[in-house]
Amino acid sequence: MQLDTSSPTHSDATRQGPDYQARRRRLAESLRERGLDAILITHLPNLRYLSGFSGSNAHLLVLADGSAAITTDGRYTTQIAQEVPDLAATIVRDGSATLIDKAKEAVSAGSVRIGVEDSHLSMAAFSALTSHVNGAELVAAGRLVEDLRLIKDADEINALRTVAAVANRAWATLLSEHAIKAGVTEREVAARLEYLMRIEGGERTSFDTIVASGPNSAKPHHGAEGRVLEQGDLVTVDFGAHLNGYNSDMTRTVVVGQADGFAAEIYDVVLRAQLAGIDAATVGTELTRVDAACRDIIAEAGYGEYFVHSTGHGVGLDVHEAPSAAQNGQGTLVENMTLTIEPGIYVPGRGGVRIEDTLLITADGPVLITDGDKNLLLV
Amino acid sequence: MQLDTSSPTHSDATRQGPDYQARRRRLAESLRERGLDAILITHLPNLRYLSGFSGSNAHLLVLADGSAAITTDGRYTTQIAQEVPDLAATIVRDGSATLIDKAKEAVSAGSVRIGVEDSHLSMAAFSALTSHVNGAELVAAGRLVEDLRLIKDADEINALRTVAAVANRAWATLLSEHAIKAGVTEREVAARLEYLMRIEGGERTSFDTIVASGPNSAKPHHGAEGRVLEQGDLVTVDFGAHLNGYNSDMTRTVVVGQADGFAAEIYDVVLRAQLAGIDAATVGTELTRVDAACRDIIAEAGYGEYFVHSTGHGVGLDVHEAPSAAQNGQGTLVENMTLTIEPGIYVPGRGGVRIEDTLLITADGPVLITDGDKNLLLV
Repeated sequence: MQLDTSSPTHSDATRQGPDYQARRRRLAESLRERGLDAILITHLPNLRYLSGFSGSNAHLLVLADGSAAITTDGRYTTQIAQEVPDLAATIVRDGSATLIDKAKEAVSAGSVRIGVEDSHLSMAAFSALTSHVNGAELVAAGRLVEDLRLIKDADEINALRTVAAVANRAWATLLSEHAIKAGVTEREVAARLEYLMRIEGGERTSFDTIVASGPNSAKPHHGAEGRVLEQGDLVTVDFGAHLNGYNSDMTRTVVVGQADGFAAEIYDVVLRAQLAGIDAATVGTELTRVDAACRDIIAEAGYGEYFVHSTGHGVGLDVHEAPSAAQNGQGTLVENMTLTIEPGIYVPGRGGVRIEDTLLITADGPVLITDGDKNLLLV
Repeated sequence: MQLDTSSPTHSDATRQGPDYQARRRRLAESLRERGLDAILITHLPNLRYLSGFSGSNAHLLVLADGSAAITTDGRYTTQIAQEVPDLAATIVRDGSATLIDKAKEAVSAGSVRIGVEDSHLSMAAFSALTSHVNGAELVAAGRLVEDLRLIKDADEINALRTVAAVANRAWATLLSEHAIKAGVTEREVAARLEYLMRIEGGERTSFDTIVASGPNSAKPHHGAEGRVLEQGDLVTVDFGAHLNGYNSDMTRTVVVGQADGFAAEIYDVVLRAQLAGIDAATVGTELTRVDAACRDIIAEAGYGEYFVHSTGHGVGLDVHEAPSAAQNGQGTLVENMTLTIEPGIYVPGRGGVRIEDTLLITADGPVLITDGDKNLLLV
């Protein structure tokens, strides 16, 4: 369950995986800036980011000096020793209480200010914690770890490239097998694509695969059901793999047999919009501007009312995460963010098209980590 | 996305799906018992249970008189109208605030006591809510909906039987194809089984499929990796499908080729333990007693230290939910609870066996909803 480190783009061949200590040091810096003595990490993707642990139960304490302590339960004794060799885990039932005690020991002078992940910690869990906080103050710390995760480090970029390549290979195989054709059901296409992603090394899908054919292609959130594909159908396939904690996200729309004028027209508009969005995704560009780059082209073509969602989102340990390229998006693109560009047109009763890639934002411009032919594909 | 209602065990052929209003009336009764005027439902499985809505964003208010109001965002305007025809949804960005206002309007006299799902609601979401509560009091309501979900109604039982049948058929096909054999990888077995569940109608897996072969079978939480199956291997396959919100859960262990004495012995012990656990799962039996029924047999055979987890759990909208058949289990079995019985023996370095079925607890005794031959299968 270790993150992949065998990628040829990995620069430090001697290191045995992501540098979790460096991530914890960056978090410790955030703690010091906010006057916090420590933070209790309870949200599992954040805990994995900071320690490498992939199990379903653990608590992590990071102190303002960068040191850390971790707990889990008896099911994970062996796994945590393998995945987190640099921290000696305490095996206990109530990890939060144990770690709050550790924080109080470590910070002997005066009241201890311990941050908690208030965006994730439930009220009930918080109430249970408060009975252990004599001499400590629990502080809502916001999304400190998510803020770090916004900028992907080299190990994360490798992991994202690896999982995107799983999906890319599966898609290429699906096309080469001619698995999308008249007479098969949406569900059969999804099942085959998911099988291929699994065989290519994916641990699971990163979200429920969408295979939206014919009139269903006009529904942005269609799943994959029993409808049989027909000649002339637009078929939108939105899919992703999950591997070593990281996700991929990609959409292609193809036509079964011959495209009619409507299908060819909206495909052309969406593709031009998507390419414009990619071009706009450069360091320093406002996220609203990236959204507008897509939206303006679709609006100019007269389909503005049919582009009913935002342009894109970050991809990482969560398949949908910050930043958001939307009409109400905030901030600008920074080097080593990820972003999907996924404009769509959905005309109820007629059909729809969505085209999506995941980009890495680099100083040299946007780099696609999903790939594949985006010319209109007749299958 | 409606729950399946075509099962022959469905008693009311004229009804078009689960009786959500009846569920909300039962919840309203709990509210009145606790002196609450309303409850704000934010946890999506609970919201689906009470309304039928399957999307990713909605809020539901249930008042103590059994009436209700629901909100979602613009992405789901069509879907919520189809899935929740009995409630006119309000399309808004801040559903919680809208619904708190509705509760205040509905309960005009004095302070309004509104329950919240404190086991799920984050501190941050709670803080955001408190700015809208002038004239209302937010009360931690605990797990009121989970308490209702503990006892499955007829529609849920149909849904659970339907999804268990998906997994049963996929497993039967996997065996008939001889897909588990020397020379294939764990991942290939998992990919094929997941494909078959998808083709049989599953929307996704209910958890990450486990295919644990040879020495990996001694790890209860192994995934499905690159190991190639060999002659003589124990192979534990733990898998489930997800359909219409409900989950299945089932484990079988088979042997590739010939079983050696160790494999045959631990298989026999686990099977006897599992059958004893099933026999013990009757209405009125303490959950600790169900656990002990399995555990005692394994301990008597000298393998007590290798049964490192609890005996079973409920299955419903969550794949792991109450009740818990464990050494620290609480309470007794009640009619129309579900329960897995899944004892295991895991001997590090040698191998392991787990056998799991999901039961429905009925007045006439436990009824298996997973099925398949449990004699030691040599594949």
